Amino acid sequence: MNIAIAQSGGPTCAINASLVGVFKQGLLTEEIDAIFGSINGIEGMIGDELINLKSIIRTNEDMELLRQTPSTMLGSCRYKLPDFKTDPEPFERIYETLQAHRIGIFIYIGGNDSMDTVVKLSGYLASVGSDIRVIGVPKTIDNDLPITDHTPGFGSAAKYVATTAQEIIRDSSVYSIPSVTIIEIMGRHSGWLTASTCILRANGEEAPHLIYLPEVDFSTERFIEDVRREMAKHKAVLVAVSEGVSLAADAEGVEAFQSGATDVFGHKYLSGIGKYLERLVAEKIGCKVRSIELNVMQRCSSHISSKTDIDEAETIGQAGLRAALEGNTGKMMYFRRVSEVPYAVTIEMTDAKNAANIEKKFPREWISSEHNQVTDAAIPYFLPLVQGEVNICMKNGLPMHFQRPLQMR
Amino acid sequence: MNIAIAQSGGPTCAINASLVGVFKQGLLTEEIDAIFGSINGIEGMIGDELINLKSIIRTNEDMELLRQTPSTMLGSCRYKLPDFKTDPEPFERIYETLQAHRIGIFIYIGGNDSMDTVVKLSGYLASVGSDIRVIGVPKTIDNDLPITDHTPGFGSAAKYVATTAQEIIRDSSVYSIPSVTIIEIMGRHSGWLTASTCILRANGEEAPHLIYLPEVDFSTERFIEDVRREMAKHKAVLVAVSEGVSLAADAEGVEAFQSGATDVFGHKYLSGIGKYLERLVAEKIGCKVRSIELNVMQRCSSHISSKTDIDEAETIGQAGLRAALEGNTGKMMYFRRVSEVPYAVTIEMTDAKNAANIEKKFPREWISSEHNQVTDAAIPYFLPLVQGEVNICMKNGLPMHFQRPLQMR
Repeated sequence: MNIAIAQSGGPTCAINASLVGVFKQGLLTEEIDAIFGSINGIEGMIGDELINLKSIIRTNEDMELLRQTPSTMLGSCRYKLPDFKTDPEPFERIYETLQAHRIGIFIYIGGNDSMDTVVKLSGYLASVGSDIRVIGVPKTIDNDLPITDHTPGFGSAAKYVATTAQEIIRDSSVYSIPSVTIIEIMGRHSGWLTASTCILRANGEEAPHLIYLPEVDFSTERFIEDVRREMAKHKAVLVAVSEGVSLAADAEGVEAFQSGATDVFGHKYLSGIGKYLERLVAEKIGCKVRSIELNVMQRCSSHISSKTDIDEAETIGQAGLRAALEGNTGKMMYFRRVSEVPYAVTIEMTDAKNAANIEKKFPREWISSEHNQVTDAAIPYFLPLVQGEVNICMKNGLPMHFQRPLQMR
Repeated sequence: MNIAIAQSGGPTCAINASLVGVFKQGLLTEEIDAIFGSINGIEGMIGDELINLKSIIRTNEDMELLRQTPSTMLGSCRYKLPDFKTDPEPFERIYETLQAHRIGIFIYIGGNDSMDTVVKLSGYLASVGSDIRVIGVPKTIDNDLPITDHTPGFGSAAKYVATTAQEIIRDSSVYSIPSVTIIEIMGRHSGWLTASTCILRANGEEAPHLIYLPEVDFSTERFIEDVRREMAKHKAVLVAVSEGVSLAADAEGVEAFQSGATDVFGHKYLSGIGKYLERLVAEKIGCKVRSIELNVMQRCSSHISSKTDIDEAETIGQAGLRAALEGNTGKMMYFRRVSEVPYAVTIEMTDAKNAANIEKKFPREWISSEHNQVTDAAIPYFLPLVQGEVNICMKNGLPMHFQRPLQMR
């Protein structure tokens, strides 16, 4: 039997580690022959674009480098399968690819949308009487998948964000004049990553002094009041704001933000919330203010990834293939936290439909009543996920990355 | 005899290591009693705001943590001394502070402006017949100080920028559609830091495909032509652009850029060159495009600092105090590269006036004739400066920082 693996959705630091986990388990399993990688997620299955992974991952060093290389080695996609009852064509093409290459197991590494693919594809295959199995392995820096305690990729993103926030605290407090620094952090619908900056308190930091999440309403008026109050207490105020904070309850704010700026080409231009709040502070308070967008570095800074995250990502990939070998299909693998101190998780499985298209929000009970902070109760949840450093392979003073074959660049 | 140290200008990852170097040499020198730190650069000397460094750096662990802590532990300033012949008042106040605390040596760690302070203050002290010595220790991520082969702080910034650029390459190449990613890098007048991304070639990377520096004219028309040509060769094009590229020769470009956007408060808003070029690519080429500003992370990401840089910064601080003890004043310490392979530098000194207010540009002979790349000849210059990693002290999965005394926060 052969197997195939694909990666989907936004890149993370851990998604290649899950690929390595599946690959390693494939090497260890006698009944498995070829291990295929599908190029650009499910699109490669539809278009029959597969590569033989054994021909490009050839040594133990290759596996280690791939574990340390951010983003998706096999490329990615944002393609969502239709309902197979109304539009069976892409399913038929995937089925042809699976049969042509004698693929008995398909492992899909991805987020909410990818779990939708697992549900639909496994459903289609069952409906045509195929015993080909489909298993989902979770990943997302957003940590917004239900059922699982956390998602692979999140711990590394949180470690990067907190490390960088702490360095920005040092940077922002050098001058004698008061200042406000606003860090915009990814998370359009959920605030997990922004909230995780609270772990800096475990190391004695007071900042971020204010944390704003999409889970609760955001008001620009209260924001300015909050900043003024913190400025009375601290010379350099640090604000962590989720890119997805909701201005819905703030009619004036939402209009000003969405009207945006007019760019040099005369187009309306929607800047990020960080830049918007920066200008708001400049206008209303008039102090020194700077906004910083952590941008894609949040999901690709593998040089400071969490060893716990990378190791778990590999292990859950491995477990996904074992679950398929045991005959399971339409399932998503997940972590269950069985102990917080000391930290311990087991890997379990659930029907992928329990996670498909559902977003897990940051808990309201961990948000302060003023909607501008995260409570200390969240710290023990986050801390274990950022523990440990990966021993990065360096060459010429720079991290080494696994290089994809030329035809994929 | 007592001594005083101050830090000035923009933060770097190495400026505290130079402080540790001076401090350690102070401990090792029998004739030195108290070691004072001046709060916020020369402002602390004018206002007599000194702290006793031995009371806050108390253990070897403190020294190691301070070496690893980014930014300026003593705070910073942008204050420039006047001419003492026309305005002696600040000089008289500094002299009072020096005498009140029996300070015989003042070490100033900073960039071009700080060397101006070294020249003026040492000149004033000589003019009043004082034998108090003033020595400058260089630092700046811009690497734009003359005389010295390179500046402490630059190697760590270059290591962060190249490491991050490489991770962004991985991140930007996951989808099947063509894309352009623009990284905006610090350097208002000199392109050293932007140019240093060429070292990725030593590790087999083709990107950045285009590199633009302030040293040569920049034209938006040629930029769009360059991007089109690179898009024909690469699916994901990466552009490194210095924040200070000069649009002076591009009348249309400069007008569009400087007219800027109108922000939500009706003010003209000058966005960075990266955002401007992003919108230009969207307008003229219409492909997927993203701009990324590396912002203050370039100067404070000590978790990926260069061991060579941090060690050298400490050594040159130590050498600065020794030079003062030998009776020198009005000098700046500098590195002379005596061998490229293997890399070796000696520490020398020059009159601070040779560096004050003078900017060293990136060499024209290392810029391609099309003004859009850096030649391979620059790689051996940059590579030694990013070698080695600092063994970062971690706590709770995060880097530990030296914490300033409460009264300084």
